[in-house]
Amino acid sequence: MMIVMKPDATEEQVRHVAERIGSVGARAHISQGEYVTIVGAIGDDSVIATLPLEAMPGVDKVLPILKPYKLVSRQLHPDDTVIDVNGRSLGGGVFALIAGPCSVESEEQYMRAARQAKAAGASMLRGGAYKPRTSPYSFQGMREDGLKIMAQAREETGLPLVTELMDPRDVEIVLRYADVIQIGTRNMQNFNLLSEVGKVERPILLKRGMSATVEELLMAAEYVLKEGNDKVILCERGIRTFETATRFTLDLSAIPVIKKSSHLPVVVDPSHATGKRDLVLPLSLASVAVGADGLIVETHPEPENALCDGSQSLPTDEFAAFAAEIVRYVKMAGKRMS
Amino acid sequence: MMIVMKPDATEEQVRHVAERIGSVGARAHISQGEYVTIVGAIGDDSVIATLPLEAMPGVDKVLPILKPYKLVSRQLHPDDTVIDVNGRSLGGGVFALIAGPCSVESEEQYMRAARQAKAAGASMLRGGAYKPRTSPYSFQGMREDGLKIMAQAREETGLPLVTELMDPRDVEIVLRYADVIQIGTRNMQNFNLLSEVGKVERPILLKRGMSATVEELLMAAEYVLKEGNDKVILCERGIRTFETATRFTLDLSAIPVIKKSSHLPVVVDPSHATGKRDLVLPLSLASVAVGADGLIVETHPEPENALCDGSQSLPTDEFAAFAAEIVRYVKMAGKRMS
Amino acid sequence: MMIVMKPDATEEQVRHVAERIGSVGARAHISQGEYVTIVGAIGDDSVIATLPLEAMPGVDKVLPILKPYKLVSRQLHPDDTVIDVNGRSLGGGVFALIAGPCSVESEEQYMRAARQAKAAGASMLRGGAYKPRTSPYSFQGMREDGLKIMAQAREETGLPLVTELMDPRDVEIVLRYADVIQIGTRNMQNFNLLSEVGKVERPILLKRGMSATVEELLMAAEYVLKEGNDKVILCERGIRTFETATRFTLDLSAIPVIKKSSHLPVVVDPSHATGKRDLVLPLSLASVAVGADGLIVETHPEPENALCDGSQSLPTDEFAAFAAEIVRYVKMAGKRMS
Amino acid sequence: MMIVMKPDATEEQVRHVAERIGSVGARAHISQGEYVTIVGAIGDDSVIATLPLEAMPGVDKVLPILKPYKLVSRQLHPDDTVIDVNGRSLGGGVFALIAGPCSVESEEQYMRAARQAKAAGASMLRGGAYKPRTSPYSFQGMREDGLKIMAQAREETGLPLVTELMDPRDVEIVLRYADVIQIGTRNMQNFNLLSEVGKVERPILLKRGMSATVEELLMAAEYVLKEGNDKVILCERGIRTFETATRFTLDLSAIPVIKKSSHLPVVVDPSHATGKRDLVLPLSLASVAVGADGLIVETHPEPENALCDGSQSLPTDEFAAFAAEIVRYVKMAGKRMS
Repeated sequence: MMIVMKPDATEEQVRHVAERIGSVGARAHISQGEYVTIVGAIGDDSVIATLPLEAMPGVDKVLPILKPYKLVSRQLHPDDTVIDVNGRSLGGGVFALIAGPCSVESEEQYMRAARQAKAAGASMLRGGAYKPRTSPYSFQGMREDGLKIMAQAREETGLPLVTELMDPRDVEIVLRYADVIQIGTRNMQNFNLLSEVGKVERPILLKRGMSATVEELLMAAEYVLKEGNDKVILCERGIRTFETATRFTLDLSAIPVIKKSSHLPVVVDPSHATGKRDLVLPLSLASVAVGADGLIVETHPEPENALCDGSQSLPTDEFAAFAAEIVRYVKMAGKRMS
Repeated sequence: MMIVMKPDATEEQVRHVAERIGSVGARAHISQGEYVTIVGAIGDDSVIATLPLEAMPGVDKVLPILKPYKLVSRQLHPDDTVIDVNGRSLGGGVFALIAGPCSVESEEQYMRAARQAKAAGASMLRGGAYKPRTSPYSFQGMREDGLKIMAQAREETGLPLVTELMDPRDVEIVLRYADVIQIGTRNMQNFNLLSEVGKVERPILLKRGMSATVEELLMAAEYVLKEGNDKVILCERGIRTFETATRFTLDLSAIPVIKKSSHLPVVVDPSHATGKRDLVLPLSLASVAVGADGLIVETHPEPENALCDGSQSLPTDEFAAFAAEIVRYVKMAGKRMS
Repeated sequence: MMIVMKPDATEEQVRHVAERIGSVGARAHISQGEYVTIVGAIGDDSVIATLPLEAMPGVDKVLPILKPYKLVSRQLHPDDTVIDVNGRSLGGGVFALIAGPCSVESEEQYMRAARQAKAAGASMLRGGAYKPRTSPYSFQGMREDGLKIMAQAREETGLPLVTELMDPRDVEIVLRYADVIQIGTRNMQNFNLLSEVGKVERPILLKRGMSATVEELLMAAEYVLKEGNDKVILCERGIRTFETATRFTLDLSAIPVIKKSSHLPVVVDPSHATGKRDLVLPLSLASVAVGADGLIVETHPEPENALCDGSQSLPTDEFAAFAAEIVRYVKMAGKRMS
Repeated sequence: MMIVMKPDATEEQVRHVAERIGSVGARAHISQGEYVTIVGAIGDDSVIATLPLEAMPGVDKVLPILKPYKLVSRQLHPDDTVIDVNGRSLGGGVFALIAGPCSVESEEQYMRAARQAKAAGASMLRGGAYKPRTSPYSFQGMREDGLKIMAQAREETGLPLVTELMDPRDVEIVLRYADVIQIGTRNMQNFNLLSEVGKVERPILLKRGMSATVEELLMAAEYVLKEGNDKVILCERGIRTFETATRFTLDLSAIPVIKKSSHLPVVVDPSHATGKRDLVLPLSLASVAVGADGLIVETHPEPENALCDGSQSLPTDEFAAFAAEIVRYVKMAGKRMS
């Protein structure tokens, strides 16, 4: 932590800052520049961070030097984390293609989607039973009935299930069905929910908040790891910007940025990011090329009858061609399919 | 809802769209332009919205004509909603000044802040017992012990309490103490939490998500009203932009925009928006001038010892001067203090 | 400048950075932390900034300590700059209300607007003769013919003229008519144009770029002052964000931020920021309250016939009531009208 | 153009809107909904757009139906535009790799970079002689001396030159040397400069403004085509968002969005977008995969001595390995190198 003093800070103010740093067991290192004095705080940053340094008289600004996360950091854990989901792995050179409808709408719809996903070579199935919807008047999901249909699809296809948990009160029920628990973009900073899933042993797919920085995403993952669950898959799904040509702006730079800072695997959701079916393939290929460990895409047997996100879903009968293209690029990137 | 067809859409595709609109009991109105055909869908928009129109063949885009909210809409309820909180009202010409520390840290700290807030003319007390923090290593709040201290401050000052609820499992306990339940910016789209507080009779202070549009804020309020609780106070607290001179960008235009669209009162939080103590006064005056119904500001007896947000807290012994300025502008705006 | 080394930087890399800093006449100050080493570069920052420090081996990041601007800085020039425009001043407790149509469309239109602006107490007249338009098919301005009409309005009303310059080739002609030269938002970083107007003696009204930080705005002003022209009026006119309820998001926090960093006066343009007539009054009052030195607003005798920005223009016959409200708040803020 | 009336609009107001539409030779089509009336304006949109419809009494909002651009539109010109630059083509299945230093600093520096670019298989050379810099104290470029050095590099390597033009007064001199004229991000809406380069016969590389929508980029290109020059190469180079891990956020979704709307070729600049050397390769591969027609990357023989952008430049002796990777992905995408 570097504390930059104001140009007119008094010696006493500098001394006061140094003393407060000393009071929590850290060391202060004063460096007098031509215009300003800088106080370096050397020691445990998580302790130093408890001091309200910016509020002290004479302080201009506080510049953090070290990253605020630890357990998710690649520095601490140089090797890629590889996550095993019922025999399907993800990360460390293995690429997962997760596919399925936005929401489970009926047995017929979900089973058709699941079968076609399996046939095309998907690695896991996605599907929502609890749906966070902007409008209270939109379809909110089939809840446990939806989860039961998903379990039936797993039974038939052998593919693991990825499904969203929205409420800490539903942990138990979702655990009964899910192979991977998804935490959605609107819950990335629902800290109680993060702590709750940190206590289970199931892998977590944590979606980036639509206005979260990469650092905040890693801090959210830190909440999960801190409770003991180190099986976290990060997911880039687009951030909110001024551009309206796409629903969100997919931030593919985040993939190599995350790879450099963290050992956790990261997948991309091009369906929600763009909101448009014909953008899903090019951005999926770009995701593979940029270094992602997987994709999570929406497919639907009849997009025009979907209760949710129809316009961004790939028709399941086009999914085999899509998957074949992905496989080509995965090989090109020197990885293998999960 | 207007459905704009692609320039090369076939007659059959247009007919198909019209039929689907008819199938949910709405009326389709086809208008053939020089370049494109437009299908107007006339009827109950919340029903029409269930159709995945954008996914239908030949459709270019769908333009909503009506606002997606109802209960919060000023059209439905032309008069300003006035909210009564234990005898202190807010809205409809009455202005509330809500003050207090970011978080309850100790009895001594909170009682000092509460007394000085009361002495300076504050209308209500704020204080956090459950704190959503970006880092799992930061102070997370005193929980029920904090609420008890707040209750003691209410006892002594007679001022109502505003405090945050983060978890649906804590509704009961928070209800035992809070006069106004705050839903924080990171939970604005925690839809289960919104539905939960929609079922209680306590007023809700709903903070705008840091990347939420005004329309999404109103839709979040709609979740609360839909469950029966119509006592919602909206709160503008800054949105995330590229500018880093302030922590967030306070969007004061949102106040008159909301006033025009909705009957709900709206307050401003300049402390979190700017993150800097010396910006709080000018932006508070601007908030009054732009038409806000109240302010929620952070005060602390010793900001430099605060466990949270010290750099943006007003020292409580400067709060009287601050409050006096606010009162001048409130009168200027033709309103009276709560 | 603080250079943060990577955790695994070698001693030689640290020494190399220190040597390069020494090579430009600055002093390096090495501070070894528990995890990382930091090299402080003490000396003339504008010289140090020429070193590509971030590209040197072992360097993690470079943190600037001092602001990159000088001439516009309040540190160098603690008193408010007051700008005199033909006897009408602006800044230092004097508030200017600049009004008039977006563009000069005809003699009749402009003279009507000018007379009503004068009658209502405006301090200066605005009007565009060269118009930067997103579409090449939109009205591009009357050019010199427009400037002549403006000069006629000045003749009759005695009010100084503010008008935009878009092209360095038009400096001479615009100088013949303008009392204040406006540099538009799309030209805030047209550095050659900035240098050109830095060489004239006329006051400059410099609008913030729609995606420029406050620091970049100040650096753009620095280009003008560096050439010798220190009569610069800054203008906040809204920044681009994800919110679509207003055309741009007016960043009123920028006013006190600028006031703290710079001695230059700053005005607000609520018309372009919001794009909506009924938002202009509340945001104008907020601008006065937040500390602006003036307003620049669009008025039109018949907004519904305007060739440009009709929907955000105040009808001139409502302008007197508008101006009266502004005057009340200007007095409240302890300032006087120009 | 669809005009949505306010719910309480009178019949007379609707009639008035319809009449104004008729007055410019367009046809009004009134459609009465349950809640609101909508007036469709059918005819030449560029004429209808001159009406200030939003300013008319009773009008709520105006929704454009058609795209505002024509000449750049794929609808008008379904085939890909292929641009020939002295025998090197770009677009329509041919991929160009443009490389070279941010700015020309010396003969020795530029010639080394040029030779290594040529040896590695680059298609064209980039280099800046006129540099737009945020600070007036930064290196501003070698001007014509720099252009002369570039010409010498072309002489020796045979590669065409891409260089920036910042000022309409420099058109003649830049034309003497450049094979492709670059318009930089800060000048994307410098409309006079756009019109000026619309009158020459040289290809233009038009960079997206850092806060421009794709539609605004296409409108800027329309300015060039309108004057007669249809050889425009678009360039995505990152947009400004809240994320600070990269300098800008590279918007790769823009590539397929542009491809769908326009016939113009589009290249990507990953160097400026990310600001970090080690992100350039992954984002370059992603650019190829997403469908770009080329890349423009910064290389430097000694990045740590660069006068500009050293931290994002690839060292020229690593460029051959970089180029080889690009070639693999270009083939994979079914294209050939220029």
